[in-house]
Amino acid sequence: MPTIEVCFSPNLLSLHNLNDKIVVVVDILRATSCMVTALACGVESILPLQDVETCKSMQLQGYLVAAERDGKKVEGFDLGNSPFSYMDSHLQGKKIAFTTTNGTQVIKLSESAKQIVVGAFLNLSAIANYLKKQQGDVLIACAGWKGQVNVEDTLFAGALVQELSQEFSTANDSALLAQSLYLTHQGNLLAFVSLCSHVQRLKNLGIQKDIEFCLQKNVYEIVPILQNGSLVKLTSQVAI
Amino acid sequence: MPTIEVCFSPNLLSLHNLNDKIVVVVDILRATSCMVTALACGVESILPLQDVETCKSMQLQGYLVAAERDGKKVEGFDLGNSPFSYMDSHLQGKKIAFTTTNGTQVIKLSESAKQIVVGAFLNLSAIANYLKKQQGDVLIACAGWKGQVNVEDTLFAGALVQELSQEFSTANDSALLAQSLYLTHQGNLLAFVSLCSHVQRLKNLGIQKDIEFCLQKNVYEIVPILQNGSLVKLTSQVAI
Repeated sequence: MPTIEVCFSPNLLSLHNLNDKIVVVVDILRATSCMVTALACGVESILPLQDVETCKSMQLQGYLVAAERDGKKVEGFDLGNSPFSYMDSHLQGKKIAFTTTNGTQVIKLSESAKQIVVGAFLNLSAIANYLKKQQGDVLIACAGWKGQVNVEDTLFAGALVQELSQEFSTANDSALLAQSLYLTHQGNLLAFVSLCSHVQRLKNLGIQKDIEFCLQKNVYEIVPILQNGSLVKLTSQVAI
Repeated sequence: MPTIEVCFSPNLLSLHNLNDKIVVVVDILRATSCMVTALACGVESILPLQDVETCKSMQLQGYLVAAERDGKKVEGFDLGNSPFSYMDSHLQGKKIAFTTTNGTQVIKLSESAKQIVVGAFLNLSAIANYLKKQQGDVLIACAGWKGQVNVEDTLFAGALVQELSQEFSTANDSALLAQSLYLTHQGNLLAFVSLCSHVQRLKNLGIQKDIEFCLQKNVYEIVPILQNGSLVKLTSQVAI
């Protein structure tokens, strides 16, 4: 039976052996929710980058550039970190270079993994079904907030552990804790997430509708997968 | 209103500013449960040390020496890491030098704190009452297992957050998560803890009665506090 582990913070990622794992990167508010939305709405690929300057320079190579720091869109960039801005039909077929405070950092930290996919509540079932088919060991890597554990990524990790609980065995305590938290709060994720520190931060930015959107399950039936450094939508044409 | 934070792993401790905090160190299975038991049963002081060799050398200075690595007593030491071994009346008035895989390491990592106390289910109410009187900001530092988050320390952190919830405000998401987990499992801590990885490890060592003992609440009415590098029982004579 394959195993599933949860890592609550990028600062704990070095405790895990990634080489033989499929890593599911999660940053619910809002990086991975944006990535799922963008690819579902027709964006061709997303290049995750760690720093703002490198991201900006990609404009010269024909990329649209997206950057968020501390919850806000960085000045001079085409896009920020609201999923609604990625529903624009003008983005169809475009390549986007993307950097965020937490989510894109975790993708970079996970580069030694066997495979990297991107999860959000928006594509929960699609990710779960994909992982069931692979039958390989899974690590869910929560982006957190600047190294700190957060509520929303932990709840997603728990939701995915729960979805996989029949076919996978939980391989660390964090997976058990996350699953229990999800089972307690699955009936009203928003109520619990609203207590958390990052939401308190985002509330000051006026993006309540983003938060509500990002907590919706199974809006999109896609699996973003990292291929040659960029995230693309998994299709039968993409070789695994 | 003072604040309460939880840190799930020693590997995340550097994200917290300890200078102005009272740090509650917790390693339920079994370092801090042993420390509470020992001081409650008459041991004069406990010197927490990081490495086995330094600890052993304290024998020459009249200390009893205690060491645990990977759940087992280290050969050649007077004591290991079972709370029952600290109930011996021969230990009254003795000084013990103590090193463990996780718990004593966290005490060392917390040295910049305003104050360090030691918590366990065994002295939950005593710790909570002490903290309420201090009215200072609190950080609960979970020892975990070799950097990994664990179930039993997280549940204790949640129990303490819950005890303090009227007088303190929760200052990070980990505190909210721990509190929620405790509220879900408070009716049967043993059932949930029995699922966790460390207990699976300890089961192989045949110490089920240690686990059951360490999950009992409010057996002892004492607060172990670090004074001049050693843990002593807080009394009205100990200057804070």
